[in-house]
Amino acid sequence: VGACHGVITRICPSAQILDVTHGIPRHDIRAGALTLRDALPYLPGGVHLAVVDPEVGCDRRAIAVRTADDQFFVGPDTGMHQPAAAGLGGVVEAASIGNSEYRLKPTSATFHGRDIFSPVAAHLAAGKSLSDVGDLLDPAVLVQFELPSPTLEDDVLFTKVLTVDRFGNIVLNVDREGLAETGLSLDTSVEVAADGSSCEVPFVSTFGDVGVEQPLLYVDAQQMLALAVNRGSAADLLNLNVDSEVRLRPLLS
Amino acid sequence: VGACHGVITRICPSAQILDVTHGIPRHDIRAGALTLRDALPYLPGGVHLAVVDPEVGCDRRAIAVRTADDQFFVGPDTGMHQPAAAGLGGVVEAASIGNSEYRLKPTSATFHGRDIFSPVAAHLAAGKSLSDVGDLLDPAVLVQFELPSPTLEDDVLFTKVLTVDRFGNIVLNVDREGLAETGLSLDTSVEVAADGSSCEVPFVSTFGDVGVEQPLLYVDAQQMLALAVNRGSAADLLNLNVDSEVRLRPLLS
Amino acid sequence: VGACHGVITRICPSAQILDVTHGIPRHDIRAGALTLRDALPYLPGGVHLAVVDPEVGCDRRAIAVRTADDQFFVGPDTGMHQPAAAGLGGVVEAASIGNSEYRLKPTSATFHGRDIFSPVAAHLAAGKSLSDVGDLLDPAVLVQFELPSPTLEDDVLFTKVLTVDRFGNIVLNVDREGLAETGLSLDTSVEVAADGSSCEVPFVSTFGDVGVEQPLLYVDAQQMLALAVNRGSAADLLNLNVDSEVRLRPLLS
Repeated sequence: VGACHGVITRICPSAQILDVTHGIPRHDIRAGALTLRDALPYLPGGVHLAVVDPEVGCDRRAIAVRTADDQFFVGPDTGMHQPAAAGLGGVVEAASIGNSEYRLKPTSATFHGRDIFSPVAAHLAAGKSLSDVGDLLDPAVLVQFELPSPTLEDDVLFTKVLTVDRFGNIVLNVDREGLAETGLSLDTSVEVAADGSSCEVPFVSTFGDVGVEQPLLYVDAQQMLALAVNRGSAADLLNLNVDSEVRLRPLLS
Repeated sequence: VGACHGVITRICPSAQILDVTHGIPRHDIRAGALTLRDALPYLPGGVHLAVVDPEVGCDRRAIAVRTADDQFFVGPDTGMHQPAAAGLGGVVEAASIGNSEYRLKPTSATFHGRDIFSPVAAHLAAGKSLSDVGDLLDPAVLVQFELPSPTLEDDVLFTKVLTVDRFGNIVLNVDREGLAETGLSLDTSVEVAADGSSCEVPFVSTFGDVGVEQPLLYVDAQQMLALAVNRGSAADLLNLNVDSEVRLRPLLS
Repeated sequence: VGACHGVITRICPSAQILDVTHGIPRHDIRAGALTLRDALPYLPGGVHLAVVDPEVGCDRRAIAVRTADDQFFVGPDTGMHQPAAAGLGGVVEAASIGNSEYRLKPTSATFHGRDIFSPVAAHLAAGKSLSDVGDLLDPAVLVQFELPSPTLEDDVLFTKVLTVDRFGNIVLNVDREGLAETGLSLDTSVEVAADGSSCEVPFVSTFGDVGVEQPLLYVDAQQMLALAVNRGSAADLLNLNVDSEVRLRPLLS
């Protein structure tokens, strides 16, 4: 990270660098995409350098894209920037930058963050255009990002775990609009079932609405349906990992 | 953290943001209070945003306070800012900011750092007053912060573990003045006892005064009595956690 | 870290602070030296504050040095800055700063990063000279940094593990020039042996050249010979730690 900051600062000394996170789990494009999407509305406009790169050194494309909002994303072509870019009006221009004249040489095979993405991002921040930093290409050919959709069968909502944070809080693949289409509503009680275990969980506003070490369903700060244990770990309680299936059934009151 | 930085930078682009730490253990108000108190003398004056928030979403108050020194603290009303504020002349003005007109809307129930504390801190940095950002209240109603006091019985000093760092170094609840009132002095040897184990430990100036893997008592860089093992872990040696009792008895030489 | 930043900012408000890393393992001077050497070419010129300090509080020297390139390193005299300084033309001037008039007082026995190194670095950044901040001394008396050399016996190259990163990627003590002198070349297959286990590993350009969970030998982004497992851990595969011996024997094709 220090080397990337150094590269950017040398090329564009006036750039203001803001680190969103360095805590995305290795190779987890989905966690990266959700984190980027959720942080973007709170960030100043600019050039967004975002690298989760399981295929570094393979023939995956290196790209920079411009949104309708005239902001940029730079990174490997994994689809990771798409949910965030959608919130900025979508991608209107894209370039392949693997052979950018602005990449550092020699270009390592394993650290494109330093050798390709940082210098290109810095040159965009300094005012260069996409056609300056690479070869324009049709945005339609970029890798698409997809989230699994929840499904409703009878009264059971089948969901997937999107992310597990370090506290064991779980984000499910149900956003606020998706929630409106299900039978779940605030202050109801829900049977939450996962492989081998289940429990009854109240759907509340926040942690303080349940006792210590009690589970809760809530809409989190990113407007997603989430499962947690007040001062505990929902991941531990139900033995959940990323991609685990979680079944939700509203209980009659 | 990235979202908080983004919120601050958008409101007050000229703000210089300095991260003290993001390593406070979850919900550990005492560790936060001690870290803040110990860092403050070394920091430039300004607005100090400090959030350890076990009761987020409950009816705990959100506050901003001004010190005699005209610096500000912003965060949940947990008492965490008090030891630091005391070093800046104490709190002279306070405001409740849970309904601040500057909070972000919609305001999430679980991420007040982003939605309430960051925007209020940024507006204070930009020159707003406490009455601009919230409703003034009597500082006397704020939650008080208290540290346990050590007690001396015969020649045994009963202390508590305040913090354990990642190296297993232990800080006890005895400051330099407290130490002067006890029978402990530099270059004496001390019997250190905890639940189920005890050992003889020299009271020295620094790690290098004892051999590798040997224990030491010393006054740490924050002027607190501390227990460590040179290139090892005092927490492991005596099986100590936060709040463990540690008994110290000076040995006759 | 926050306190160090604060000290620097108070002394030299115009200083631009760039954090290279805070992830060097405790007391690991070699990892620090390699990280510093590898990052330096990508950083803006300036004052480099680098502290890994196993002997803090002992009589190890505190130093600041100036390179032929007019950049500075500040830290304990452990040799850690030497590989990086060599890349900047080598050390041309040195000063002992343990009693610098610019150190903070009282000076703690255990936190010289805050009390000695940060203020001296800030004063150098603000334009002071080495003779201003300490007592000049002959650079020849400084602690020397040495890396173990690989040895070749018959067709077996005996190497050592220099570093293990959090992914289990292994850096060996063979640089690109050293490699040219051995029998190893790209696209050959190599028998890699460590205590108790061995396997056949292809020497390739990058991770994507082997299958998932397959091992690879490659020249890393710092031009060092490295051993990894694509989406896995080479450290786990061969049970390797820092300083483990690794024997490499090219296989006939």
